[in-house]
Amino acid sequence: MWIPRRIQHCRVCGAPAAYRVPADDNRERAVCTHCGEIHYENPLNVVGTVPYFGERVLLCLRNIEPRRGKWTLPAGFMELGETTAQGAARETDEEAGAHFEIEGLFSVLSVPRVGQVHLFYRARLLNERFDPGPETQEARLFTEAEIPWDDIAFRTVRETLLRYFDDRRRGTYAVHTLDID
Amino acid sequence: MWIPRRIQHCRVCGAPAAYRVPADDNRERAVCTHCGEIHYENPLNVVGTVPYFGERVLLCLRNIEPRRGKWTLPAGFMELGETTAQGAARETDEEAGAHFEIEGLFSVLSVPRVGQVHLFYRARLLNERFDPGPETQEARLFTEAEIPWDDIAFRTVRETLLRYFDDRRRGTYAVHTLDID
Repeated sequence: MWIPRRIQHCRVCGAPAAYRVPADDNRERAVCTHCGEIHYENPLNVVGTVPYFGERVLLCLRNIEPRRGKWTLPAGFMELGETTAQGAARETDEEAGAHFEIEGLFSVLSVPRVGQVHLFYRARLLNERFDPGPETQEARLFTEAEIPWDDIAFRTVRETLLRYFDDRRRGTYAVHTLDID
Repeated sequence: MWIPRRIQHCRVCGAPAAYRVPADDNRERAVCTHCGEIHYENPLNVVGTVPYFGERVLLCLRNIEPRRGKWTLPAGFMELGETTAQGAARETDEEAGAHFEIEGLFSVLSVPRVGQVHLFYRARLLNERFDPGPETQEARLFTEAEIPWDDIAFRTVRETLLRYFDDRRRGTYAVHTLDID
């Protein structure tokens, strides 16, 4: 089982932590050697959208690492205090400065290698005006034929786009679940 | 925005952390006053199943807090290194000792008040033999009429069960998304 082992000190008292299996548990956790606090490490959610305007989809050219210079759907880490849909909308606003209405959940992709779950919602763009934030070099609409498939930043984005255009052709949108190695 | 503010010390060097807005960010994080490490806090996923055998659904009587003595669907925190479906299956094994096959994703419920996302999969039980672990007092099958609605442990479980029986009557299963206040 993949454990990053990145916790060296206790968040409560600052004393050194050691990885061991706590009582009533079955896997290693960072446990404080002084106060006994157990530090759980769990997967993170990445939430985003498939923003569409007619037959075209909005992609953002990344201005930050990882994958600077590659194209992505607007997405980022879900924050405390928000729903998955609110997080997806926030990221779309921050990264593309788009005007849109959130529609249904479209894809749920597990990426266990990096401890992430990616959730994408469909988002109907209200116009073609974008105002990308500092994380984005450029926000642009692409038809399916124009999608830069060789320069897509992440597998989850690629798989989501493939399924989006498939569903669009069929005229009906499902919720897609997929595991990425 | 809800922040638990539970990080008092840096996980890297153990020095005190202070909540402030880092450069290039727009919300408060626990930042180490010595080494500058930023500690992000994000929502957790709870993964579980709706295990069914014919027209009956499996519920577990909780043996641990919170909600000891209340009935729940088998579910728990997703761990690093697993997919959402693998986590749901693991929890069903740990809490009910059931034999089953995981089917499709059924519900995705955001609970922003506690910083959680709950994901439930349908699971077809292969037999009526259960071997609950220490977290469960009893694992039992219930028809819709028998469900102890007043003694269900969590809102996400209640909402998932309501939608499961609705879909079962209609003969078709959707993926349900819901936000819980």
